[in-house]
Parts: sequence; structure tokens; C-alpha cells
Amino acid sequence: MKQITSRDNPIVKQAASLKQNKYRRQEGLFLLEGERLIDEIILFGDRLVRYFVQEDLLEKYRWFIEKMGDEKCCLVNEKIIRSICDSSNPQGIVAVASIRHWGLETALERRGLWVMMDAVSDPGNLGTIIRSCWALGGQGCLLSPDCADPHSPKASRASMGGILNIPVIHGIAREDLLRLISSGYTLMGTSVKKALPYYQTDLSRDIVLLIGSEARGLGSSMMEICHEMLLIPMKEGVNSLNAASACAIILSEAMRQKSAC
Amino acid sequence: MKQITSRDNPIVKQAASLKQNKYRRQEGLFLLEGERLIDEIILFGDRLVRYFVQEDLLEKYRWFIEKMGDEKCCLVNEKIIRSICDSSNPQGIVAVASIRHWGLETALERRGLWVMMDAVSDPGNLGTIIRSCWALGGQGCLLSPDCADPHSPKASRASMGGILNIPVIHGIAREDLLRLISSGYTLMGTSVKKALPYYQTDLSRDIVLLIGSEARGLGSSMMEICHEMLLIPMKEGVNSLNAASACAIILSEAMRQKSAC
Repeated sequence: MKQITSRDNPIVKQAASLKQNKYRRQEGLFLLEGERLIDEIILFGDRLVRYFVQEDLLEKYRWFIEKMGDEKCCLVNEKIIRSICDSSNPQGIVAVASIRHWGLETALERRGLWVMMDAVSDPGNLGTIIRSCWALGGQGCLLSPDCADPHSPKASRASMGGILNIPVIHGIAREDLLRLISSGYTLMGTSVKKALPYYQTDLSRDIVLLIGSEARGLGSSMMEICHEMLLIPMKEGVNSLNAASACAIILSEAMRQKSAC
Repeated sequence: MKQITSRDNPIVKQAASLKQNKYRRQEGLFLLEGERLIDEIILFGDRLVRYFVQEDLLEKYRWFIEKMGDEKCCLVNEKIIRSICDSSNPQGIVAVASIRHWGLETALERRGLWVMMDAVSDPGNLGTIIRSCWALGGQGCLLSPDCADPHSPKASRASMGGILNIPVIHGIAREDLLRLISSGYTLMGTSVKKALPYYQTDLSRDIVLLIGSEARGLGSSMMEICHEMLLIPMKEGVNSLNAASACAIILSEAMRQKSAC
């Protein structure tokens, strides 16, 4: 166990820099803040680079140190924890983990339901969708190049560990979707216009479910390659649902259909 | 139409103060920021107190001024819009609207499905739940005293106008729930333990659906007055779903059951 007392320590500065996308890319590392996220890294020990524990909370996090070993542990004061964390209420523990890169071949191999996010720019929504995908049996997430970064502190917090547990494939373009289609995937979008209610469609197939941006919905170049459009029936006159909520509704129905098989 | 050029103008200062809960309570007013929220106030014209339009976007918002009349319109510069708005990317229009207060009698009268939030402290989640409740046919929302304020700019933005469209009743305590129960409501909670899958329960009844806080779930004093616990089946080993996503899943199933009736 190392004790670090200065915010200018290079290890602290590196960790704090990971709040910025640029440094996450450069270093291939990201932050996991707080008790619940830390709990998730236990299963992925090889991805843990180091972690910082607030010295006056040492006893609280003893279990974690015992599990993960103390060579990777840095004891620091509250000020240092605050300088590293993005959250306004840090919980006295933050880990630096390596980013795992996934390629399209994972989606070609692991058949089932994948969620494709097209220009989802809100990191909270993006992380929440990763969390739902993980919890509700999706294989993983595909992200268009203009999505928010899933490894940002906000997205990683909202994913509640989902970012470690399921593959998240970046930089997916229309051509990649066409490759998935020709390998047998059915591409589905959501629509507020005339379309089949989501529960009247067979969701137990190999599916890529397209989720559009909050502001603009699905782009037309995406829409035109969709095989099917799904409708989430709403009260008359309303046609607005949060993207993460819409995604959870469809994923849960897919889970239900599979359990009935 | 009034032109205002100073941030020290009392009307501007009052509007900017509404970012704080204290002043929202004191004045009985709240803010609706941006194009989509503004669109929702049209149906509730009597609740519109005044609105601010960025002068160089006058043409863009001409339709709104024509609909709502120009007596309530204040033309201002971008700096003033920024001083009023909470969003980091304000869209050049913001309205001041009156808060409508609802009492328990509304829930006693308007039978159907109500969502009760217990200590939901994230304004984004809270607003998203109001939005889903509105879109998916819920009657309205009930809030425990320790919930986030549904009229905060973040919550009102996330509700996408839902806050205007459905009753949101504040300060609901256990006794109020007991009154609803004795009037015939069935109280349902969600659980990750052994419970009936949500789609195996009759959700077309008069229901109060309890949603617990993100951090702690449902409190035991709430849990013990629940008639039924609902389970959202998840992948083995995972028991975590965003509160707003969980709520949307159950509301959508209720909508489906009612449409099948």
C-alpha cells in the first residue's frame, strides 16, 4: 500500500486526467467511482490498474483491499479523492481500470439481441441503456461514432458496472450494420407512426435494436435499412418517451419471450 | 412586447431566482426551458406568466408569440437568457409558469394507475418517471416529502412537459397511502427477490406502484404495507435496473393489459 499526500503526484494527476476523453483514449484507462462500481471490478481483476482509498475510510473498504491485494492500493486524503472523482459526492474510493476494445466480430459471433445507439449524446442515457442491456439479457451495445463516450465517469456510473460486464463496440457505421444484416441479424427501429406494437413481434431472433438520439430520433439513413419498425403504444396525443426507458421496455419484452420459449 | 436589456431588471432577476427551490416555493412559479417544453405550455395558457425570447431568434419563435400573444413576451439578449436558464445550451426561449398544487383527493377521484416515488432524489430520474407516467397512461405521480423537486429545471426538462400534463402530488406520507388503500387501491412494490413477474399480475386495477430510491430501494415501512411485490426478471446474477427504466417497463405492461381488455 502506497501513501500519497500530494495532488501533484504523477499517479494522482494521471487518474484525474481520465475525466477527459482525450486522456482516456491516450492512456486506454477509465475511472470507476464509488462503492457499487468498485464491487463490479472484482470479477475483472486483470483490468484493475490501481485504486485510491480515502485514508479515513480505510476500514470501510478493507474488504476490497483484502480481495484485490494492497499492491494496487493508494491511500490518499479526501482532497485527492475529490480531485480525481467527477461525482460531487465521491464515496471515498475510485479505481483506474483498463478499457477493453471490442470489434465487430464479437457481434457476429455472439448471436442474440444487440442494442445499437445512433448519436445518443447524453452520457446518463447511454450508461442507463448499457445497464438495461446487461440486466435484461442483451448481448451488448453498438455505438455510432457520434455517441457520447461510454467510459466517461457519468456514463460509467449510470451503467452501474454494465460497461465491464457486456461488450460495448464503438464506431459502428452503416456498413457494419449491413454486415450484421448479411450475417442474419434483423434490424429493428422504433417509431411513433404506424408500426407493429413491440409485443406483437418475435424478439427472440438475432436482432439489432436501433435507438436514436433524444433530439432527432433515428436518422433516415438508418431508418431505410431497418427491416421492422416497432411501436410502443402510448396515450393518445403523446409520442415522447425517454430513449433509455423505451429501450428497457423492449429488452424486457425480449427477455419475457425468451423465457416463454 | 417588452425589451429588457439589463440582467438587473427585477423581472429577469425573479426568473433567474427560480432555479432555486426556495424561490419556486415562495413565488409559486417555475421555469420551462427550450423549444419542446414551450410547445407543451400552449395547452395550459392560463399558467403562462411570461416568457423570454432571445432577440436574434425572434423569427424562429414567431409562431409561439403569435399563439400566446406578445403582452407576456420579453425580448432579451443571449446573456440574459443564459442568466435565467439552468441548461448549458439554452435554446433562446424560456417561460415562467405557475405551479399547480394538487391534493390527495385527485388520486381518490381519478382511479387507475398512480406512481408513488419514495425518496427518488435524482431530478433526471424523477422527471423521466413523470414523462413515462404521462406517455404510458398513468393517472399521475405521488411524491414522498424527501423526493427531488419536480419543478426544478432538470426535472421539468426530463419530464418533457409531463409536469404540466399529469397531476403530481407532493408530500405524500404513509398515512396518505393507507387512505388510498382503504379507498380500494392496491399497493405494489418492486422486488429483486422471489416475487411474481410483473406480467403475471393484473395491472388493469386501481394501483399505486411504489418506486424506491436509487440508492436504497424501498424503505421497510413502505414495503410492509404493499399488497403485492412485482419482479422484473433479469439475467442471472444481475439485480440492478434504473428506477425510471423499471417504472417504464411496468407502465408499458399496464397499458398493454388495458388495451387487451
